[in-house]
Amino acid sequence: MRLARIAHPGGVAFASIEGDGADAQVLEIAEHPFGQPNFTGKRWPLADVRLLAPILPSKVIAVGRNYAKHAAEFGHDVPGAPMLFVKPSTTVIGPNAPIRRPSDVGRVDFEGELAVVIGQPVKNVPASRAASVILGYTIANDVSARDLQKSDGQWGRAKGFDTFCPLGPWIETAVDPSDLSLKAEVDGELKQDARTSDLVHKIPELVEFVSRVMTLLPGDVILTGTPEGVGPIEGGQSVSITVEGIGTLTNPVEDV
Amino acid sequence: MRLARIAHPGGVAFASIEGDGADAQVLEIAEHPFGQPNFTGKRWPLADVRLLAPILPSKVIAVGRNYAKHAAEFGHDVPGAPMLFVKPSTTVIGPNAPIRRPSDVGRVDFEGELAVVIGQPVKNVPASRAASVILGYTIANDVSARDLQKSDGQWGRAKGFDTFCPLGPWIETAVDPSDLSLKAEVDGELKQDARTSDLVHKIPELVEFVSRVMTLLPGDVILTGTPEGVGPIEGGQSVSITVEGIGTLTNPVEDV
Repeated sequence: MRLARIAHPGGVAFASIEGDGADAQVLEIAEHPFGQPNFTGKRWPLADVRLLAPILPSKVIAVGRNYAKHAAEFGHDVPGAPMLFVKPSTTVIGPNAPIRRPSDVGRVDFEGELAVVIGQPVKNVPASRAASVILGYTIANDVSARDLQKSDGQWGRAKGFDTFCPLGPWIETAVDPSDLSLKAEVDGELKQDARTSDLVHKIPELVEFVSRVMTLLPGDVILTGTPEGVGPIEGGQSVSITVEGIGTLTNPVEDV
Repeated sequence: MRLARIAHPGGVAFASIEGDGADAQVLEIAEHPFGQPNFTGKRWPLADVRLLAPILPSKVIAVGRNYAKHAAEFGHDVPGAPMLFVKPSTTVIGPNAPIRRPSDVGRVDFEGELAVVIGQPVKNVPASRAASVILGYTIANDVSARDLQKSDGQWGRAKGFDTFCPLGPWIETAVDPSDLSLKAEVDGELKQDARTSDLVHKIPELVEFVSRVMTLLPGDVILTGTPEGVGPIEGGQSVSITVEGIGTLTNPVEDV
Protein backbone atom coordinates (compact mmCIF):
# COMPACT_ATOMS: atom_id res chain seq x y z
CA MET A 1 0.00 0.00 0.00
CA ARG A 2 1.14 3.53 -0.73
CA LEU A 3 0.15 5.83 2.16
CA ALA A 4 0.10 9.58 1.59
CA ARG A 5 -1.07 12.78 3.22
CA ILE A 6 -3.00 15.00 0.86
CA ALA A 7 -4.56 18.42 0.56
CA HIS A 8 -7.85 17.85 -1.26
CA PRO A 9 -10.63 20.33 -2.06
CA GLY A 10 -12.20 19.86 1.39
CA GLY A 11 -9.14 19.76 3.64
CA VAL A 12 -6.21 17.59 4.62
CA ALA A 13 -6.27 13.82 5.13
CA PHE A 14 -4.28 10.63 5.06
CA ALA A 15 -4.98 8.56 1.96
CA SER A 16 -3.88 5.50 0.06
CA ILE A 17 -2.90 5.68 -3.58
CA GLU A 18 -4.08 3.05 -6.05
CA GLY A 19 -2.97 2.65 -9.63
CA ASP A 20 -0.28 4.46 -11.57
CA GLY A 21 0.15 7.31 -13.99
CA ALA A 22 -2.94 9.13 -15.25
CA ASP A 23 -5.25 6.49 -13.70
CA ALA A 24 -3.90 6.86 -10.15
CA GLN A 25 -6.59 7.49 -7.52
CA VAL A 26 -6.31 8.60 -3.90
CA LEU A 27 -8.67 7.03 -1.35
CA GLU A 28 -9.27 9.10 1.77
CA ILE A 29 -8.48 7.46 5.15
CA ALA A 30 -10.77 8.45 8.03
CA GLU A 31 -8.25 9.03 10.77
CA HIS A 32 -4.67 7.81 10.74
CA PRO A 33 -2.86 5.17 8.73
CA PHE A 34 -1.65 3.06 11.67
CA GLY A 35 -3.12 -0.41 12.04
CA GLN A 36 -5.95 -1.21 9.64
CA PRO A 37 -6.98 2.11 8.04
CA ASN A 38 -10.65 3.04 7.75
CA PHE A 39 -11.61 4.51 4.39
CA THR A 40 -14.22 7.26 4.12
CA GLY A 41 -15.28 6.27 0.61
CA LYS A 42 -14.12 9.60 -0.83
CA ARG A 43 -11.65 9.40 -3.70
CA TRP A 44 -10.01 11.74 -6.18
CA PRO A 45 -7.70 11.43 -9.16
CA LEU A 46 -4.12 11.81 -7.89
CA ALA A 47 -3.71 14.77 -10.23
CA ASP A 48 -6.47 16.67 -8.39
CA VAL A 49 -4.83 16.61 -4.94
CA ARG A 50 -1.58 17.94 -3.54
CA LEU A 51 0.78 15.54 -1.82
CA LEU A 52 2.04 16.69 1.58
CA ALA A 53 4.77 15.16 3.73
CA PRO A 54 3.35 11.63 4.18
CA ILE A 55 3.78 11.83 7.94
CA LEU A 56 4.44 14.51 10.57
CA PRO A 57 6.90 12.74 12.87
CA SER A 58 7.32 13.59 16.54
CA LYS A 59 11.02 13.07 15.91
CA VAL A 60 13.42 12.43 13.06
CA ILE A 61 16.43 10.33 14.08
CA ALA A 62 19.22 10.33 11.52
CA VAL A 63 22.23 8.06 11.16
CA GLY A 64 25.52 9.60 10.08
CA ARG A 65 28.20 7.94 7.91
CA ASN A 66 26.25 4.76 7.23
CA TYR A 67 27.59 4.17 3.71
CA ALA A 68 31.36 3.53 3.67
CA LYS A 69 32.02 5.47 0.45
CA HIS A 70 30.15 8.54 1.76
CA ALA A 71 32.13 8.50 5.01
CA ALA A 72 35.29 8.26 2.90
CA GLU A 73 34.36 11.20 0.67
CA PHE A 74 34.75 13.49 3.70
CA GLY A 75 37.78 11.58 5.02
CA HIS A 76 35.95 9.74 7.81
CA ASP A 77 35.87 6.13 8.91
CA VAL A 78 32.59 4.32 9.38
CA PRO A 79 31.72 4.52 13.10
CA GLY A 80 31.53 1.22 14.96
CA ALA A 81 28.19 2.12 16.50
CA PRO A 82 25.55 4.01 14.48
CA MET A 83 26.15 7.74 14.93
CA LEU A 84 22.80 9.33 15.78
CA PHE A 85 21.66 12.92 15.45
CA VAL A 86 18.23 14.47 15.68
CA LYS A 87 16.53 16.74 13.15
CA PRO A 88 13.78 19.01 14.57
CA SER A 89 10.29 18.10 13.35
CA THR A 90 10.02 21.63 11.94
CA THR A 91 12.48 20.60 9.19
CA VAL A 92 9.87 18.38 7.51
CA ILE A 93 8.28 19.39 4.20
CA GLY A 94 6.51 17.39 1.53
CA PRO A 95 7.21 16.65 -2.12
CA ASN A 96 7.44 19.67 -4.46
CA ALA A 97 7.65 22.11 -1.54
CA PRO A 98 10.71 24.36 -1.83
CA ILE A 99 13.89 23.76 0.12
CA ARG A 100 14.63 27.26 1.44
CA ARG A 101 18.39 27.73 1.31
CA PRO A 102 19.68 30.48 3.62
CA SER A 103 21.97 32.78 1.69
CA ASP A 104 24.36 33.43 4.59
CA VAL A 105 25.43 29.91 5.60
CA GLY A 106 27.77 28.88 2.78
CA ARG A 107 27.43 25.54 1.06
CA VAL A 108 24.16 23.61 1.39
CA ASP A 109 24.07 19.98 0.21
CA PHE A 110 21.35 17.50 -0.71
CA GLU A 111 21.61 13.99 0.78
CA GLY A 112 19.33 11.31 -0.65
CA GLU A 113 18.24 8.69 1.90
CA LEU A 114 15.91 5.79 2.50
CA ALA A 115 13.64 6.61 5.47
CA VAL A 116 11.98 4.16 7.84
CA VAL A 117 8.56 5.12 9.27
CA ILE A 118 7.69 3.54 12.63
CA GLY A 119 4.18 2.11 13.04
CA GLN A 120 3.70 1.70 16.78
CA PRO A 121 5.12 2.81 20.13
CA VAL A 122 8.25 0.73 20.74
CA LYS A 123 11.16 0.47 23.15
CA ASN A 124 13.91 -2.17 23.11
CA VAL A 125 12.70 -4.01 20.01
CA PRO A 126 15.14 -6.73 18.88
CA ALA A 127 16.35 -6.68 15.27
CA SER A 128 14.49 -9.92 14.65
CA ARG A 129 11.16 -8.17 15.32
CA ALA A 130 12.03 -4.81 13.73
CA ALA A 131 9.99 -5.44 10.58
CA SER A 132 6.82 -5.83 12.65
CA VAL A 133 7.07 -2.32 14.12
CA ILE A 134 7.74 -0.57 10.79
CA LEU A 135 4.79 1.06 9.01
CA GLY A 136 6.72 1.41 5.75
CA TYR A 137 9.43 3.25 3.87
CA THR A 138 9.67 6.64 2.26
CA ILE A 139 12.37 8.86 0.77
CA ALA A 140 14.17 11.68 2.56
CA ASN A 141 16.53 14.47 1.65
CA ASP A 142 18.73 15.17 4.69
CA VAL A 143 19.58 18.71 3.57
CA SER A 144 22.78 19.86 5.30
CA ALA A 145 24.52 23.23 5.62
CA ARG A 146 27.94 21.70 5.05
CA ASP A 147 30.12 24.60 6.19
CA LEU A 148 28.16 25.02 9.44
CA GLN A 149 28.30 21.28 10.01
CA LYS A 150 32.09 21.53 10.09
CA SER A 151 32.39 24.80 12.02
CA ASP A 152 29.72 24.00 14.65
CA GLY A 153 30.87 20.45 15.43
CA GLN A 154 27.39 19.44 16.58
CA TRP A 155 24.90 19.28 13.71
CA GLY A 156 21.79 20.71 15.36
CA ARG A 157 22.00 23.93 13.36
CA ALA A 158 23.45 22.62 10.06
CA LYS A 159 20.77 19.94 9.76
CA GLY A 160 18.00 21.84 11.53
CA PHE A 161 16.85 24.67 9.28
CA ASP A 162 13.16 24.78 8.37
CA THR A 163 12.57 22.82 5.09
CA PHE A 164 15.77 20.75 5.52
CA CYS A 165 13.91 17.41 5.66
CA PRO A 166 11.80 16.79 2.55
CA LEU A 167 9.89 13.50 2.95
CA GLY A 168 7.78 11.62 0.43
CA PRO A 169 6.17 11.26 -1.97
CA TRP A 170 4.40 8.56 0.08
CA ILE A 171 5.05 5.64 2.43
CA GLU A 172 5.33 2.26 0.72
CA THR A 173 4.31 -0.48 3.12
CA ALA A 174 5.04 -3.51 0.93
CA VAL A 175 8.64 -3.13 -0.22
CA ASP A 176 11.68 -5.12 0.94
CA PRO A 177 14.21 -2.37 1.73
CA SER A 178 17.32 -4.52 1.87
CA ASP A 179 18.61 -4.05 -1.69
CA LEU A 180 17.02 -1.12 -3.50
CA SER A 181 18.56 1.28 -5.99
CA LEU A 182 18.86 4.83 -4.59
CA LYS A 183 19.59 7.68 -7.01
CA ALA A 184 19.75 11.44 -6.60
CA GLU A 185 19.67 13.92 -9.46
CA VAL A 186 20.13 17.68 -9.48
CA ASP A 187 18.49 19.29 -12.50
CA GLY A 188 18.42 15.88 -14.15
CA GLU A 189 22.12 15.19 -13.64
CA LEU A 190 22.84 11.94 -11.76
CA LYS A 191 24.77 12.63 -8.53
CA GLN A 192 24.16 9.63 -6.26
CA ASP A 193 23.76 6.08 -7.53
CA ALA A 194 23.95 3.41 -4.84
CA ARG A 195 22.10 0.45 -3.38
CA THR A 196 20.65 0.13 0.11
CA SER A 197 22.51 -3.18 0.40
CA ASP A 198 25.58 -0.99 1.01
CA LEU A 199 24.15 0.33 4.29
CA VAL A 200 26.79 -0.42 6.95
CA HIS A 201 24.26 -0.74 9.77
CA LYS A 202 21.18 -2.42 8.31
CA ILE A 203 17.60 -1.39 9.04
CA PRO A 204 16.74 -4.09 11.61
CA GLU A 205 19.95 -3.28 13.50
CA LEU A 206 19.15 0.45 13.37
CA VAL A 207 15.63 -0.06 14.74
CA GLU A 208 17.03 -2.16 17.59
CA PHE A 209 19.83 0.32 18.29
CA VAL A 210 17.64 3.44 18.29
CA SER A 211 14.83 1.80 20.27
CA ARG A 212 17.30 0.73 22.97
CA VAL A 213 18.00 4.43 23.49
CA MET A 214 14.59 6.03 23.09
CA THR A 215 10.92 5.20 22.78
CA LEU A 216 9.83 5.44 19.15
CA LEU A 217 6.30 6.66 18.52
CA PRO A 218 3.98 5.98 15.57
CA GLY A 219 5.13 8.14 12.68
CA ASP A 220 8.65 8.66 13.95
CA VAL A 221 11.21 8.53 11.15
CA ILE A 222 14.70 7.02 11.02
CA LEU A 223 16.90 8.37 8.21
CA THR A 224 19.27 5.55 7.31
CA GLY A 225 22.16 7.64 5.96
CA THR A 226 23.27 8.90 2.57
CA PRO A 227 25.60 7.28 0.04
CA GLU A 228 28.50 8.93 -1.77
CA GLY A 229 27.90 11.67 -4.31
CA VAL A 230 26.43 14.43 -2.13
CA GLY A 231 26.95 17.95 -3.40
CA PRO A 232 25.77 21.55 -3.25
CA ILE A 233 22.39 22.89 -4.33
CA GLU A 234 21.41 26.43 -5.17
CA GLY A 235 18.31 28.49 -5.72
CA GLY A 236 16.56 27.66 -8.99
CA GLN A 237 17.74 24.06 -9.02
CA SER A 238 15.59 20.98 -8.46
CA VAL A 239 16.60 17.83 -6.53
CA SER A 240 15.02 14.45 -7.23
CA ILE A 241 15.69 11.36 -5.16
CA THR A 242 14.44 8.03 -6.47
CA VAL A 243 14.31 4.81 -4.48
CA GLU A 244 13.38 1.67 -6.38
CA GLY A 245 10.01 0.31 -5.33
CA ILE A 246 8.97 3.55 -3.62
CA GLY A 247 9.01 6.47 -6.06
CA THR A 248 10.64 9.86 -6.57
CA LEU A 249 10.84 12.79 -4.15
CA THR A 250 11.37 16.08 -5.99
CA ASN A 251 11.91 19.50 -4.41
CA PRO A 252 12.87 22.83 -5.94
CA VAL A 253 15.47 24.97 -4.18
CA GLU A 254 14.86 28.63 -3.31
CA ASP A 255 17.47 31.05 -2.02
CA VAL A 256 16.19 33.08 0.91
CA MET B 1 2.77 33.13 37.75
CA ARG B 2 3.97 29.56 38.33
CA LEU B 3 2.55 27.30 35.60
CA ALA B 4 2.55 23.54 36.18
CA ARG B 5 1.14 20.36 34.73
CA ILE B 6 -0.47 18.17 37.34
CA ALA B 7 -2.00 14.77 37.85
CA HIS B 8 -5.02 15.36 40.10
CA PRO B 9 -7.69 12.90 41.30
CA GLY B 10 -9.72 13.40 38.09
CA GLY B 11 -6.99 13.44 35.44
CA VAL B 12 -4.19 15.60 34.05
CA ALA B 13 -4.29 19.37 33.55
CA PHE B 14 -2.27 22.54 33.35
CA ALA B 15 -2.52 24.62 36.51
CA SER B 16 -1.14 27.67 38.23
CA ILE B 17 0.33 27.49 41.71
CA GLU B 18 -0.48 30.13 44.32
CA GLY B 19 1.11 30.53 47.70
CA ASP B 20 4.03 28.69 49.26
CA GLY B 21 4.77 25.85 51.61
CA ALA B 22 1.87 24.07 53.27
CA ASP B 23 -0.61 26.70 52.07
CA ALA B 24 0.22 26.32 48.35
CA GLN B 25 -2.80 25.72 46.13
CA VAL B 26 -3.02 24.60 42.50
CA LEU B 27 -5.71 26.20 40.30
CA GLU B 28 -6.75 24.13 37.27
CA ILE B 29 -6.41 25.75 33.83
CA ALA B 30 -9.10 24.79 31.30
CA GLU B 31 -6.99 24.17 28.23
CA HIS B 32 -3.43 25.36 27.77
CA PRO B 33 -1.32 27.97 29.51
CA PHE B 34 -0.51 30.08 26.44
CA GLY B 35 -1.99 33.56 26.25
CA GLN B 36 -4.46 34.39 29.02
CA PRO B 37 -5.28 31.09 30.74
CA ASN B 38 -8.88 30.20 31.55
CA PHE B 39 -9.39 28.74 35.02
CA THR B 40 -11.95 26.01 35.65
CA GLY B 41 -12.52 27.03 39.27
CA LYS B 42 -11.20 23.68 40.55
CA ARG B 43 -8.35 23.86 43.04
CA TRP B 44 -6.42 21.50 45.27
CA PRO B 45 -3.71 21.78 47.91
CA LEU B 46 -0.35 21.37 46.15
CA ALA B 47 0.36 18.40 48.42
CA ASP B 48 -2.66 16.54 46.98
CA VAL B 49 -1.52 16.57 43.32
CA ARG B 50 1.52 15.20 41.51
CA LEU B 51 3.63 17.59 39.46
CA LEU B 52 4.41 16.42 35.92
CA ALA B 53 6.84 17.93 33.41
CA PRO B 54 5.40 21.46 33.17
CA ILE B 55 5.31 21.27 29.38
CA LEU B 56 5.56 18.58 26.68
CA PRO B 57 7.71 20.33 24.07
CA SER B 58 7.62 19.46 20.38
CA LYS B 59 11.36 19.96 20.48
CA VAL B 60 14.14 20.57 22.98
CA ILE B 61 17.00 22.64 21.56
CA ALA B 62 20.12 22.61 23.69
CA VAL B 63 23.17 24.86 23.63
CA GLY B 64 26.58 23.28 24.24
CA ARG B 65 29.51 24.90 26.03
CA ASN B 66 27.72 28.10 26.97
CA TYR B 67 29.56 28.69 30.28
CA ALA B 68 33.30 29.29 29.79
CA LYS B 69 34.38 27.34 32.89
CA HIS B 70 32.31 24.29 31.86
CA ALA B 71 33.83 24.32 28.36
CA ALA B 72 37.25 24.52 30.01
CA GLU B 73 36.61 21.58 32.36
CA PHE B 74 36.57 19.30 29.30
CA GLY B 75 39.39 21.19 27.59
CA HIS B 76 37.21 23.03 25.06
CA ASP B 77 37.01 26.65 23.98
CA VAL B 78 33.72 28.49 23.98
CA PRO B 79 32.34 28.31 20.42
CA GLY B 80 31.92 31.62 18.57
CA ALA B 81 28.38 30.74 17.53
CA PRO B 82 26.03 28.89 19.90
CA MET B 83 26.52 25.14 19.36
CA LEU B 84 23.08 23.58 18.99
CA PHE B 85 21.97 20.00 19.46
CA VAL B 86 18.52 18.48 19.72
CA LYS B 87 17.17 16.24 22.47
CA PRO B 88 14.24 13.99 21.45
CA SER B 89 10.95 14.93 23.12
CA THR B 90 10.86 11.40 24.56
CA THR B 91 13.68 12.41 26.95
CA VAL B 92 11.34 14.65 28.97
CA ILE B 93 10.21 13.65 32.45
CA GLY B 94 8.84 15.67 35.35
CA PRO B 95 10.04 16.39 38.87
CA ASN B 96 10.56 13.38 41.16
CA ALA B 97 10.36 10.93 38.25
CA PRO B 98 13.40 8.65 38.12
CA ILE B 99 16.30 9.23 35.74
CA ARG B 100 16.82 5.73 34.33
CA ARG B 101 20.55 5.22 33.94
CA PRO B 102 21.49 2.46 31.48
CA SER B 103 24.01 0.13 33.07
CA ASP B 104 25.97 -0.52 29.87
CA VAL B 105 26.93 2.98 28.72
CA GLY B 106 29.64 3.99 31.19
CA ARG B 107 29.57 7.33 32.95
CA VAL B 108 26.29 9.29 33.05
CA ASP B 109 26.40 12.93 34.24
CA PHE B 110 23.85 15.42 35.53
CA GLU B 111 23.95 18.93 34.01
CA GLY B 112 21.88 21.63 35.72
CA GLU B 113 20.50 24.26 33.36
CA LEU B 114 18.12 27.18 33.09
CA ALA B 115 15.46 26.39 30.45
CA VAL B 116 13.51 28.86 28.32
CA VAL B 117 9.92 27.93 27.39
CA ILE B 118 8.60 29.51 24.19
CA GLY B 119 5.08 30.96 24.27
CA GLN B 120 4.09 31.41 20.63
CA PRO B 121 5.03 30.28 17.12
CA VAL B 122 8.07 32.33 16.08
CA LYS B 123 10.63 32.55 13.30
CA ASN B 124 13.37 35.17 12.96
CA VAL B 125 12.61 37.02 16.18
CA PRO B 126 15.21 39.72 16.95
CA ALA B 127 16.91 39.66 20.37
CA SER B 128 15.17 42.92 21.24
CA ARG B 129 11.76 41.20 21.04
CA ALA B 130 12.81 37.83 22.50
CA ALA B 131 11.23 38.47 25.91
CA SER B 132 7.81 38.90 24.29
CA VAL B 133 7.83 35.37 22.80
CA ILE B 134 8.94 33.61 26.00
CA LEU B 135 6.25 32.02 28.17
CA GLY B 136 8.62 31.65 31.13
CA TYR B 137 11.54 29.79 32.63
CA THR B 138 11.97 26.39 34.18
CA ILE B 139 14.83 24.14 35.30
CA ALA B 140 16.34 21.31 33.27
CA ASN B 141 18.78 18.49 33.85
CA ASP B 142 20.53 17.77 30.54
CA VAL B 143 21.50 14.22 31.52
CA SER B 144 24.41 13.04 29.38
CA ALA B 145 26.07 9.66 28.81
CA ARG B 146 29.55 11.17 28.91
CA ASP B 147 31.52 8.25 27.48
CA LEU B 148 29.13 7.84 24.54
CA GLN B 149 29.23 11.58 23.94
CA LYS B 150 32.95 11.29 23.33
CA SER B 151 32.96 8.02 21.39
CA ASP B 152 29.97 8.85 19.14
CA GLY B 153 31.03 12.39 18.21
CA GLN B 154 27.44 13.43 17.56
CA TRP B 155 25.39 13.61 20.75
CA GLY B 156 22.06 12.21 19.56
CA ARG B 157 22.50 9.00 21.51
CA ALA B 158 24.41 10.28 24.56
CA LYS B 159 21.82 13.00 25.24
CA GLY B 160 18.80 11.12 23.86
CA PHE B 161 17.96 8.29 26.26
CA ASP B 162 14.43 8.23 27.67
CA THR B 163 14.31 10.20 30.98
CA PHE B 164 17.44 12.24 30.12
CA CYS B 165 15.61 15.59 30.24
CA PRO B 166 13.96 16.22 33.60
CA LEU B 167 12.04 19.53 33.47
CA GLY B 168 10.28 21.44 36.24
CA PRO B 169 9.03 21.79 38.86
CA TRP B 170 7.01 24.52 37.08
CA ILE B 171 7.37 27.45 34.67
CA GLU B 172 7.92 30.81 36.34
CA THR B 173 6.61 33.57 34.07
CA ALA B 174 7.66 36.59 36.13
CA VAL B 175 11.38 36.15 36.79
CA ASP B 176 14.25 38.14 35.22
CA PRO B 177 16.62 35.34 34.08
CA SER B 178 19.71 37.47 33.51
CA ASP B 179 21.48 36.99 36.86
CA LEU B 180 20.12 34.06 38.88
CA SER B 181 21.96 31.66 41.14
CA LEU B 182 22.04 28.10 39.71
CA LYS B 183 23.07 25.24 42.00
CA ALA B 184 23.13 21.49 41.57
CA GLU B 185 23.41 19.00 44.42
CA VAL B 186 23.84 15.23 44.38
CA ASP B 187 22.61 13.65 47.61
CA GLY B 188 22.81 17.06 49.24
CA GLU B 189 26.41 17.71 48.22
CA LEU B 190 26.89 20.95 46.26
CA LYS B 191 28.34 20.25 42.80
CA GLN B 192 27.46 23.25 40.62
CA ASP B 193 27.27 26.81 41.94
CA ALA B 194 27.13 29.48 39.25
CA ARG B 195 25.13 32.45 38.06
CA THR B 196 23.20 32.80 34.80
CA SER B 197 25.03 36.09 34.25
CA ASP B 198 27.96 33.87 33.22
CA LEU B 199 26.07 32.56 30.16
CA VAL B 200 28.34 33.28 27.17
CA HIS B 201 25.45 33.63 24.72
CA LYS B 202 22.61 35.35 26.61
CA ILE B 203 18.96 34.35 26.37
CA PRO B 204 17.78 37.07 23.95
CA GLU B 205 20.68 36.23 21.63
CA LEU B 206 19.87 32.49 21.87
CA VAL B 207 16.20 33.04 21.00
CA GLU B 208 17.22 35.14 17.98
CA PHE B 209 19.86 32.62 16.92
CA VAL B 210 17.67 29.53 17.21
CA SER B 211 14.63 31.19 15.63
CA ARG B 212 16.71 32.24 12.62
CA VAL B 213 17.30 28.54 12.01
CA MET B 214 13.98 26.98 12.88
CA THR B 215 10.39 27.83 13.69
CA LEU B 216 9.80 27.60 17.43
CA LEU B 217 6.38 26.40 18.54
CA PRO B 218 4.50 27.10 21.79
CA GLY B 219 6.02 24.94 24.51
CA ASP B 220 9.34 24.39 22.75
CA VAL B 221 12.26 24.49 25.16
CA ILE B 222 15.74 25.97 24.82
CA LEU B 223 18.29 24.61 27.29
CA THR B 224 20.79 27.39 27.85
CA GLY B 225 23.83 25.29 28.80
CA THR B 226 25.38 24.01 32.00
CA PRO B 227 28.06 25.61 34.20
CA GLU B 228 31.17 23.91 35.59
CA GLY B 229 30.90 21.17 38.19
CA VAL B 230 29.09 18.43 36.24
CA GLY B 231 29.76 14.92 37.39
CA PRO B 232 28.54 11.33 37.42
CA ILE B 233 25.34 10.03 38.98
CA GLU B 234 24.45 6.48 39.94
CA GLY B 235 21.43 4.45 40.92
CA GLY B 236 20.16 5.30 44.40
CA GLN B 237 21.38 8.90 44.26
CA SER B 238 19.18 11.99 43.99
CA VAL B 239 19.94 15.13 41.94
CA SER B 240 18.49 18.52 42.85
CA ILE B 241 18.90 21.62 40.72
CA THR B 242 17.88 24.95 42.18
CA VAL B 243 17.51 28.17 40.21
CA GLU B 244 16.88 31.33 42.23
CA GLY B 245 13.40 32.72 41.67
CA ILE B 246 12.11 29.48 40.11
CA GLY B 247 12.46 26.56 42.52
CA THR B 248 14.12 23.16 42.82
CA LEU B 249 13.95 20.23 40.38
CA THR B 250 14.70 16.93 42.14
CA ASN B 251 14.98 13.52 40.48
CA PRO B 252 16.11 10.17 41.89
CA VAL B 253 18.43 8.00 39.77
CA GLU B 254 17.68 4.36 39.00
CA ASP B 255 20.08 1.91 37.38
CA VAL B 256 18.36 -0.12 34.65
